[in-house]
Amino acid sequence: MVIDSSFFINLALKEAWKYQGLTYPNPAVGCTIVSPKNELLSVEAHKKSGLPHAEVMALRTAYFKLTNDSKILELTSSSEIHTFLLNNHNNCFRDISLYTTLEPCSHIGKTPSCASLISALGIKKVFVGFNDINEEASGGTEILKKSGVDVQSSILEKKAYDLIAPFNKWKEDKFVFFKWAQRLNGSTDAGTISSIESRINVHKMRNVCDLLVIGGNTVREDRPTLDARLVHGKAPDVLIISRKKEFDKSIALFGVEGREVFIEDNFSLLNNYKNIMIEGSSNMFELTKDIVDYYLCYLAPTIGGKSGFEKVEEKFEILNIDQEDQDIIMWMKREK
Amino acid sequence: MVIDSSFFINLALKEAWKYQGLTYPNPAVGCTIVSPKNELLSVEAHKKSGLPHAEVMALRTAYFKLTNDSKILELTSSSEIHTFLLNNHNNCFRDISLYTTLEPCSHIGKTPSCASLISALGIKKVFVGFNDINEEASGGTEILKKSGVDVQSSILEKKAYDLIAPFNKWKEDKFVFFKWAQRLNGSTDAGTISSIESRINVHKMRNVCDLLVIGGNTVREDRPTLDARLVHGKAPDVLIISRKKEFDKSIALFGVEGREVFIEDNFSLLNNYKNIMIEGSSNMFELTKDIVDYYLCYLAPTIGGKSGFEKVEEKFEILNIDQEDQDIIMWMKREK
Ligand SMILES: [Zn+2]
Ligand SMILES: [Zn+2]
Repeated sequence: MVIDSSFFINLALKEAWKYQGLTYPNPAVGCTIVSPKNELLSVEAHKKSGLPHAEVMALRTAYFKLTNDSKILELTSSSEIHTFLLNNHNNCFRDISLYTTLEPCSHIGKTPSCASLISALGIKKVFVGFNDINEEASGGTEILKKSGVDVQSSILEKKAYDLIAPFNKWKEDKFVFFKWAQRLNGSTDAGTISSIESRINVHKMRNVCDLLVIGGNTVREDRPTLDARLVHGKAPDVLIISRKKEFDKSIALFGVEGREVFIEDNFSLLNNYKNIMIEGSSNMFELTKDIVDYYLCYLAPTIGGKSGFEKVEEKFEILNIDQEDQDIIMWMKREK
Repeated sequence: MVIDSSFFINLALKEAWKYQGLTYPNPAVGCTIVSPKNELLSVEAHKKSGLPHAEVMALRTAYFKLTNDSKILELTSSSEIHTFLLNNHNNCFRDISLYTTLEPCSHIGKTPSCASLISALGIKKVFVGFNDINEEASGGTEILKKSGVDVQSSILEKKAYDLIAPFNKWKEDKFVFFKWAQRLNGSTDAGTISSIESRINVHKMRNVCDLLVIGGNTVREDRPTLDARLVHGKAPDVLIISRKKEFDKSIALFGVEGREVFIEDNFSLLNNYKNIMIEGSSNMFELTKDIVDYYLCYLAPTIGGKSGFEKVEEKFEILNIDQEDQDIIMWMKREK
C-alpha cells in the first residue's frame, strides 16, 4: 500500500462521507493532520451545521496529541477552540501537514476563517482536495499562499468534488437524493430490512431534510410516520405523489406536528425546497430519474422477499461505500 | 476517528483481505509498521505462497522509509530480504511498533522465522491480532517474549480470526467458499455482470483452487470454460452436480488441458480436495448450505435482469467489504 498524500486525503474523504447530507447547509469536509514523517495525528470531519469545521476538529485532536494538554478536549465550540489554539499553540504545529478535502474557508463569521487560523498557527504545508467555487467562502488558498503556506491543490480532485457536489447543489438550487433500503437479493418488501443503526441514520437525514417525497401507493400500503423520532429530530414536510387525492388521514404521517403534507401529481413543489429526500420504490425510481442527484442505498446482508426493481435498467457509479454495523451504506450517482 | 492499536491492526486486516483465498495454502496476513509517534511507515500483506510473509514485506518498506536506502527495493525473495535486513538494519527499527493480524511465525524453513527476524532487528513492541493455533508455526509469541519484546495479543481478535479461518480449514480439513456475481437488484442472469477487474480476481481464485463445483443446468445453459486464462493460471478440476450424466462434450470446460471433470449427484468428492470454490446459482446455494464456510459476492452497481435468489431465506455476517474498480467485493458467512 502506498502511503502518500492521496492516502491521507482518502482517510479524510472516508471520514467526511460518514456525515454526507447531515452537514446541510454546510459542505461535508474531512481533514487529516500528519507530522513531517507521516505521523498520523488526527482524522476528523465536519459533522453538523453549528459544530466546528473539519480543520478545527482535526487541529484540536492534533494539538492534544502534540502537547498532551487535555484542556482543549473540554472545548467543543468553534470559537472556544479557535481562541484556545491561537493563545496556546506555541508553534507546535509548525512542521505538520494538513490535508483537507475542500479548500479551507476564508469567510469570517462568528469565528475567524480556517484559512486565517491555519496561517496564524504557522502551518507550512496544506494539501487540498477540491478548490471551493462558492464565492462567499473561496479565497482560502489565496490567504494561505500570502502567508507563505505551501498549498498543493487537486489531490484526488474528482473524489473530493463528488463529496462536495451536494453542497454546490444546495447553494445553486436544490439537492435531491433518492434513498432506499434493500436486501442482497434486491428485495424491498416484507418487513424491516435495515439494522437499527441504519434506521437511526435515516432519521438523522430526515431531521436535516426539508422535504420528503413518497409515492401514494407506498403511503397506502406501508402507512408510514416518516418522522425523525429515533433522534428526537424535526419531521420534514411530505409530498405524496398521487393522482388520487384521497387518503386515510389516520395514517401516521398526517398526524405529525409542525409538518405540511402535500398531495400532488407532479414534482414542481420541489422548487420550493433545498434538501430533498425521495423515499422510493421501483416506480418512483423511474419517475424521478431526471431530478435525482445522488442515490443512497442501505444494503442489508440478507436474502428474502421479492426483488423490488424488476423493470428498471440502470448503471451507477459508486461514490462511497461504508459499513454501519452490519449494513452497507452506498452513495451513488447514475453513470452518464 | 480514534487512531490507536485497533486502527493500525484494521489497516493491516483490510490490506490482507485483498488477498484472501489467493494465499493458499498460506494464511492471509497483514502487517502495519509505525514509529513511536504513530508515523505510518508501511502497510503490507502476504500476497501469494512463495512470496514473502506480510511482516517481511512491511519491514522492507519501513526500512526504505527509515533509511532512504533504495537497495532493498530491488530485493523480492524472502531470503534476500531477511539477509539484507539482518546485515544492514543498524538498529533503525529499535523504536518502531509492528502490528500483525496473525502471531508471527516461528517455523524455520527456507528462511528464518518472522519471530526470530523481529527479535534480531531489536524491535521492542509487537501487537498481534490472532494467536496462531497451527502447531508447526505457533510459538512466535514465546520467541518474541524471550527476547524481551513487549507483545500485546488479541487486538481485534474476532476480526483477525475471521481473516485466518480459511487457513485453519485448509490445515484441518478443507475450505469451501461459494462465489457468485450479481447486480444490485439481485439478478444473476442476462450476460456479463462483473467488471474486468472482478473477473481477473475470479481467475486468480480459480488458479489457486483445486476444485470447482457447478450445477448441471448452469453448465448446459452457460456453456462455461471455467479456466484461469485471464491470469494465465492453471484450471482446477471440475465437479458437475447433476443427476443426468450426459453433457455435450463440446462445452469448453471439458476441453481444458490438465483438468479432470467429474459428474456426480452428490458432494462426497469434495473430501479429496482442500481449496474448493462453488460457482453458484440459487439451487446450488440451497444444496450446499451445510458445507460452505464463506461466501464471496461480486456486486455490480447496476440494475437489470431478474432476481436470482427468489426462494432463498438467509442472513449473512459481513466479514469484509472492498471496492475493486466499480464492483463491491463482499466476503460473508452465514449468521449462526
Ligand atoms: Zn472552515
Ligand atoms: Zn512469517
